[in-house]
Amino acid sequence: MQQATEILKVKTTRQGLVEITDQVREWVAVQPMQRGLLTIFCQHTSASLLIQENAAKAVRGDLEAYFSRIAPEDPTAYAHDDEGPDDMPAHLRTALTQVQLSIPLLDRKLALGTWQGIYLFEHRRHPHTRTIALHLIGD
Amino acid sequence: MQQATEILKVKTTRQGLVEITDQVREWVAVQPMQRGLLTIFCQHTSASLLIQENAAKAVRGDLEAYFSRIAPEDPTAYAHDDEGPDDMPAHLRTALTQVQLSIPLLDRKLALGTWQGIYLFEHRRHPHTRTIALHLIGD
Amino acid sequence: MQQATEILKVKTTRQGLVEITDQVREWVAVQPMQRGLLTIFCQHTSASLLIQENAAKAVRGDLEAYFSRIAPEDPTAYAHDDEGPDDMPAHLRTALTQVQLSIPLLDRKLALGTWQGIYLFEHRRHPHTRTIALHLIGD
Repeated sequence: MQQATEILKVKTTRQGLVEITDQVREWVAVQPMQRGLLTIFCQHTSASLLIQENAAKAVRGDLEAYFSRIAPEDPTAYAHDDEGPDDMPAHLRTALTQVQLSIPLLDRKLALGTWQGIYLFEHRRHPHTRTIALHLIGD
Repeated sequence: MQQATEILKVKTTRQGLVEITDQVREWVAVQPMQRGLLTIFCQHTSASLLIQENAAKAVRGDLEAYFSRIAPEDPTAYAHDDEGPDDMPAHLRTALTQVQLSIPLLDRKLALGTWQGIYLFEHRRHPHTRTIALHLIGD
Repeated sequence: MQQATEILKVKTTRQGLVEITDQVREWVAVQPMQRGLLTIFCQHTSASLLIQENAAKAVRGDLEAYFSRIAPEDPTAYAHDDEGPDDMPAHLRTALTQVQLSIPLLDRKLALGTWQGIYLFEHRRHPHTRTIALHLIGD
C-alpha cells in the first residue's frame, strides 16, 4: 500500500463553477496505484467542491443562479460583512455544498459516472488563487 | 492492509429515499477486514446519498417534501430542462446533499449510530437503475 | 501502513456550532503517522459536522441564523414531531450539511486552511452528548 499527495492551485476570476476534472485526472494518471481512494480537500471557507453534470452547460448556470437565490447577498441579513456583501453568502454556499470529496480509483480510473465532472465552486466576486490538497492511498 | 471494491446496482421506481444499509452491510460482512474505511460513491448527478433516521418513517416523508420545496420543479426558474421539469431540480437536490460518504469500520462493524441508515436519494420521477461504487480499505 | 481509531464524546448545551478542532488535532498529534487520511464521522441524525471560518465569531452566528431560516421550526410543516418542534428541523439541517469529513494528513499536520476550523453542529435545543468516530490511516 502506498500514498501520494499533491497541492493543486486553481485560479478563479469570478463567482461560479471551474472544472478541475482534467487536472485531478492528470495527477492521478502519473501515480503508481491501480486501485485506491482519492481525496480532494479545498482549504477555504468561501469556495467549495461539487461533483456535477459536465455535459449541458446550462446546468452550471442554473446551479450558480440557484445558490445565489437560496444564500443571497443581502446587507440586512448578516452580521458578518468584513470583506463585503459577498463574504457571508460565500460561507453559507460553502456550508451547503462541501469542502471534501473522496472518489474510489478502480483499474487506474476514477470511479466517476459518465456525466460527472469535479468542480471548484468559487463563491467570491474577486479573483482568487485557491489551494486544493489531493491525497491518494492504494496499491 | 487490503482493499476491496464492488459495484452495487439499485433500482428506483419513484422520487425519494431507498434504504441501502443492508446491501452495504452484507457486502462489508464478507470482506476479510476487521478495521478500515468504507467509501460509498454514487455515480450520478440526479441521485445522491444521505445518512438519515431509519426508525420513524415520517422523517423520510418530511425530508422528501422539504427537498421538493427548497429545490422545486418550476419551468420558469431554470434554463436547463432537457429531460423534463424534474431534471434541473434533481441536480440541485444532489448538490445540496452528497454523492460520497465514508464510514469507519470498527471491530468488523460500520460505525453507524443506532438511528442512522444509509439511503440512496432518487431525484428523478421515472424508474432508474443507479450505480454505486463501494471501496473498503483496512486490515 | 497503519490505522488508528478513537471515539470522541462532545457535550453540547444548546443549538449551534461547537469547535472540535483542538480535540481532533490533539488525538492526531499522538498517533505515529506522518502522512495519511483522517475521517471524522458523527453518529447522529440531528447533529452534523462543518468545516468553517474559525476567526470572525459573527460568521458562526450568521450560519446558525441561516440554517434556522432555511429549515425552520414550524409545527404545520412536518408530519414528524415525536421529540418536539426542533426534531424535524434537526434532521433537515443535518441533511443539508454532512455527518462525515475526511482531511488529509501532510507532514504530521491536518491539511486545514488557515481559517478552517472543524465544528460539531448541534441542531437540538436540549443538551446532548454526541459521539464522533475518528479513523486515521497512513504511515
